[in-house]
Amino acid sequence: MTTARETDSQPELPESPGILTNGAPAKPPIRAVGIITKRFNEEAQNASRELAEWLHNRGIQVTVTPDTARRARIPKGVARRAKQKNLPEGQDLTVVIGGDGTFIAAAGAIGLRDVPLLGINMGRLGFLTEIAVETMFNAMEEVLDGHYEVEERTMLATSILREGREMVCQTALNDAVIHKGDRGRMIEFEVAIDARFLFSNRADGLIVATPTGSTAYTLSSGGPIIHPALGAFVLTLVSPHTLTQRPIAVPDCGDITITMIEEGPSPRLTMDGHESILLTAGDQIRIRRAERKLRIVHTPAHNYYGVLRAKLHWGEKVGV
Amino acid sequence: MTTARETDSQPELPESPGILTNGAPAKPPIRAVGIITKRFNEEAQNASRELAEWLHNRGIQVTVTPDTARRARIPKGVARRAKQKNLPEGQDLTVVIGGDGTFIAAAGAIGLRDVPLLGINMGRLGFLTEIAVETMFNAMEEVLDGHYEVEERTMLATSILREGREMVCQTALNDAVIHKGDRGRMIEFEVAIDARFLFSNRADGLIVATPTGSTAYTLSSGGPIIHPALGAFVLTLVSPHTLTQRPIAVPDCGDITITMIEEGPSPRLTMDGHESILLTAGDQIRIRRAERKLRIVHTPAHNYYGVLRAKLHWGEKVGV
Amino acid sequence: MTTARETDSQPELPESPGILTNGAPAKPPIRAVGIITKRFNEEAQNASRELAEWLHNRGIQVTVTPDTARRARIPKGVARRAKQKNLPEGQDLTVVIGGDGTFIAAAGAIGLRDVPLLGINMGRLGFLTEIAVETMFNAMEEVLDGHYEVEERTMLATSILREGREMVCQTALNDAVIHKGDRGRMIEFEVAIDARFLFSNRADGLIVATPTGSTAYTLSSGGPIIHPALGAFVLTLVSPHTLTQRPIAVPDCGDITITMIEEGPSPRLTMDGHESILLTAGDQIRIRRAERKLRIVHTPAHNYYGVLRAKLHWGEKVGV
Amino acid sequence: MTTARETDSQPELPESPGILTNGAPAKPPIRAVGIITKRFNEEAQNASRELAEWLHNRGIQVTVTPDTARRARIPKGVARRAKQKNLPEGQDLTVVIGGDGTFIAAAGAIGLRDVPLLGINMGRLGFLTEIAVETMFNAMEEVLDGHYEVEERTMLATSILREGREMVCQTALNDAVIHKGDRGRMIEFEVAIDARFLFSNRADGLIVATPTGSTAYTLSSGGPIIHPALGAFVLTLVSPHTLTQRPIAVPDCGDITITMIEEGPSPRLTMDGHESILLTAGDQIRIRRAERKLRIVHTPAHNYYGVLRAKLHWGEKVGV
Repeated sequence: MTTARETDSQPELPESPGILTNGAPAKPPIRAVGIITKRFNEEAQNASRELAEWLHNRGIQVTVTPDTARRARIPKGVARRAKQKNLPEGQDLTVVIGGDGTFIAAAGAIGLRDVPLLGINMGRLGFLTEIAVETMFNAMEEVLDGHYEVEERTMLATSILREGREMVCQTALNDAVIHKGDRGRMIEFEVAIDARFLFSNRADGLIVATPTGSTAYTLSSGGPIIHPALGAFVLTLVSPHTLTQRPIAVPDCGDITITMIEEGPSPRLTMDGHESILLTAGDQIRIRRAERKLRIVHTPAHNYYGVLRAKLHWGEKVGV
Repeated sequence: MTTARETDSQPELPESPGILTNGAPAKPPIRAVGIITKRFNEEAQNASRELAEWLHNRGIQVTVTPDTARRARIPKGVARRAKQKNLPEGQDLTVVIGGDGTFIAAAGAIGLRDVPLLGINMGRLGFLTEIAVETMFNAMEEVLDGHYEVEERTMLATSILREGREMVCQTALNDAVIHKGDRGRMIEFEVAIDARFLFSNRADGLIVATPTGSTAYTLSSGGPIIHPALGAFVLTLVSPHTLTQRPIAVPDCGDITITMIEEGPSPRLTMDGHESILLTAGDQIRIRRAERKLRIVHTPAHNYYGVLRAKLHWGEKVGV
Repeated sequence: MTTARETDSQPELPESPGILTNGAPAKPPIRAVGIITKRFNEEAQNASRELAEWLHNRGIQVTVTPDTARRARIPKGVARRAKQKNLPEGQDLTVVIGGDGTFIAAAGAIGLRDVPLLGINMGRLGFLTEIAVETMFNAMEEVLDGHYEVEERTMLATSILREGREMVCQTALNDAVIHKGDRGRMIEFEVAIDARFLFSNRADGLIVATPTGSTAYTLSSGGPIIHPALGAFVLTLVSPHTLTQRPIAVPDCGDITITMIEEGPSPRLTMDGHESILLTAGDQIRIRRAERKLRIVHTPAHNYYGVLRAKLHWGEKVGV
Repeated sequence: MTTARETDSQPELPESPGILTNGAPAKPPIRAVGIITKRFNEEAQNASRELAEWLHNRGIQVTVTPDTARRARIPKGVARRAKQKNLPEGQDLTVVIGGDGTFIAAAGAIGLRDVPLLGINMGRLGFLTEIAVETMFNAMEEVLDGHYEVEERTMLATSILREGREMVCQTALNDAVIHKGDRGRMIEFEVAIDARFLFSNRADGLIVATPTGSTAYTLSSGGPIIHPALGAFVLTLVSPHTLTQRPIAVPDCGDITITMIEEGPSPRLTMDGHESILLTAGDQIRIRRAERKLRIVHTPAHNYYGVLRAKLHWGEKVGV
């Protein structure tokens, strides 16, 4: 989470850990904002146009993708155009309008640039898109006024070692998944951490998730929720052959190596549910914490536990 | 367990984190050893006598409990006597001969004293008693020669706030459990962390476990395994009313407060499966990281992942 | 619920199996109706009075409990009084106004009498109380017109064999639960079916549930849903010591015997969450299908799968 | 396994239900035996030759596959040759020497022929191959003497309705599995039973298992164990999107229809882990009980619960 903290007999747990700037005045002014919009979604495109105009009227330089510009009919005078992968370049903030899927894709576009992301959802609260489109202008006003926090989230970096050569894969915000291919047979693999053998097993799949990803796919496979302040990865097996296998959370400072044992029927490595790479026996998949962290902007209304409760339909306060 | 590792740009993950002394020469000499023995177990008593004599012959001052002295017929010339709760006083090391239950009881006896524990099992490998009684003398020789590591394990501290007064409970190495009493009805409670509301629910029980405790009771209730290097507590509900409830790991620097909602039929708070306190509606159970940590001595043969594999019957190395 | 289906060589599966009367004309007229009402619930009491008057105006003889009569101010001219345990006597139908808990208590009151039950819920759909209070009169009109089905549900019968003497317990509609008492230690037991040993284990509890009970307590402990047409009991352990233990569904024609092994701290047998009997080491708890079945009245709108979906928030039809 | 039991008013539960012949004298003599052998397994081939010679010396006509004959060097005078799919033809018994996988393949070869199967395992107890190769001759002697039981096991029959045409698939002894293909995205589907909508969901997969299959793949995905005497199928989702989804056991007399909703990336239907058929949006997979049942031969030593305990490492008898 971080550096210096106020003196306190009990250590303090910020609800959204990884907060860098603490209502402090030193926040840089926001002068350039990029907007990434969910594709093929008219409501998101309308919101993008409205937000672009609203920002433009406040003297902010706005950038959108050519696709959004065309579909949302945003005039050139209102917003510059840039391809999604270049869009974060030179921005002070990137706003994502869509769902968590759009947010994750945007996180990939950020690359090594140090631009924070703010997520606006289209009617359905997301774990990452926490601002309802109806409250979009209020939220932006707070952000422009410096009333926001920036939380850092860990990302995964993955590479494949095959026949002595290392192939670098994209980073992931949620998870790296090794999954059996299309024939129905289980994959077989060995897991080591920092070159220490952890276990071998057969399963439909193996999920290595960040705390952010712990509320995504791994949750469907019986994994626990991991608070984003914890420097942990969680390893969860999908339909493991060994019934005593259990999800295990390990420190994210370790190097996780998964070795594919058998020549199975086309197992694959998938990052954040997207990039899919065919694996082969002997492949070593190396997973570690990415050097860069994703920076997420939270308005004061943000409440991590509240999002958990809302998304998982947990019980609300009863009172004593 | 650890020692030399290949040079690596990634931060190092010790398999047993929290290691204080790193094969360094500066370890203080061991001159006084206490022995805590499993009660009513002849084999443990015999091993205690043999170890006491072995240490005595090497000029080490040995202390045992009066009960062990009597049952194991250890002469006064070989070992001093002290009650279990006073036994760690003035020792350089306390050896536990028994199972994990004996080790946990010994951890309670340590109190605020800074004495490390070494566990010897009686035929069945434990998560905490990692040395087989057959290899006891070899292991002790290594320890006396300074070939050992000391790992710190987090403990839980619990207190109950009732009608404005705070009652302090014992610390626990594994877990604090709030459980319905003897009538079969569920308990109802609210959980907050650092005064932020997390959730309310009804269940048979709520387990708050340390990483050490994550392989104990909570594992039977669907909780994940938490590596001891993670500064985390895991909250697991036993038979929760809400089906979307999932185990959640949270930073151990936070203050967990559980408020009992309804006047149920005698719910109870249990620490490490032992101390049992009757609860009442409105009680606030406050759980936080204990100030002291337990120090565990590991010989070079120690392998946390190996113990996991052995205890959970996980798959062994297959090789590529 | 059922009616006509396409001709098919496969045997027919009624959605609510165990249906006795199939829209056939031979249903006996309903002339006497008992009403059992949720206690301390004003809305339920008001509904009881309205239903009593509605039935009385149609020439039906109505019976209520003295408590309901007094609280709901039902005149003697409208409804006779009878204690709950005698109330089903001589009735053609017993209507339960409340929730599933009230329904289960009413099922206990039915005893060996052959009176069917109809459940009306107070605002929250129940697994057993399927008619919303707002549609109460429409539903009753259909029932009086003979447009209903009667489904049979299996019940459990339990007895305890202690020191050669057999103590008979009440029957249960949902489950018989053996649970550890108030000290936090696990119970230890052996399970046999028809005198054949099945397994031994230690756990917080052991649940033996009927198909009706499979959506109650056992579901919170990881048990499966069992369709009411299956002649099965499901055995689920709460927090089992052995991680490979899994819920098991067995034929309900077998005799399940659970033998308590160790002198534990006051384990208890609970039937449907209510009757609680203290157990002791050596006790043999014998569980079998009760001779009588509970008869539940369904109106044509009844849909077992629809109730499952609504109660468990499962996905609705998407269409192709 | 079964025979005499104490007189009891309760209906009798045979431990291996579906038993046809009850120690009765009317068993037909065994004059012709086919042997199906695990491929590429020398130990299994040796056992096949020894069994073929042992049977031949007792005047039994023996048939093996050409592959087994060649690899195991079985003379033509000792055993006839027949391809595996024709091998059961005209036999009184088919012996499977191998593991459960070989047994399942043999069950497929049986087709509509009424030949019972007997399984001999190669060193590792199987759920279906219950006789250790070391006790093979004793077991066969009992079988030839008529000291055996025949248990019937339900099989699944599956067909795919696509654009108005029905494609018939092979039957399965364990399970029919619909699984996402090779791209990592979930499949989306609707499930109906006898044309009544049950639920829709998204998941990695959907398993429909027989009681025999309940101890196979579905167990890894959280499914319950279903006693073979129950006329049930169990539906289990692999990594379901909806966290409240639970395994559900339904009567096997119903027709289960699964409709594929979205044009996903090549989902597949797999029967018993083998036959793999590419599915497309709009496909309706119809699963029902196969007309024929598999007949399994059990020697008196057979103990279904004992196999469960041994395979799942459950606790053994403790005694009171």
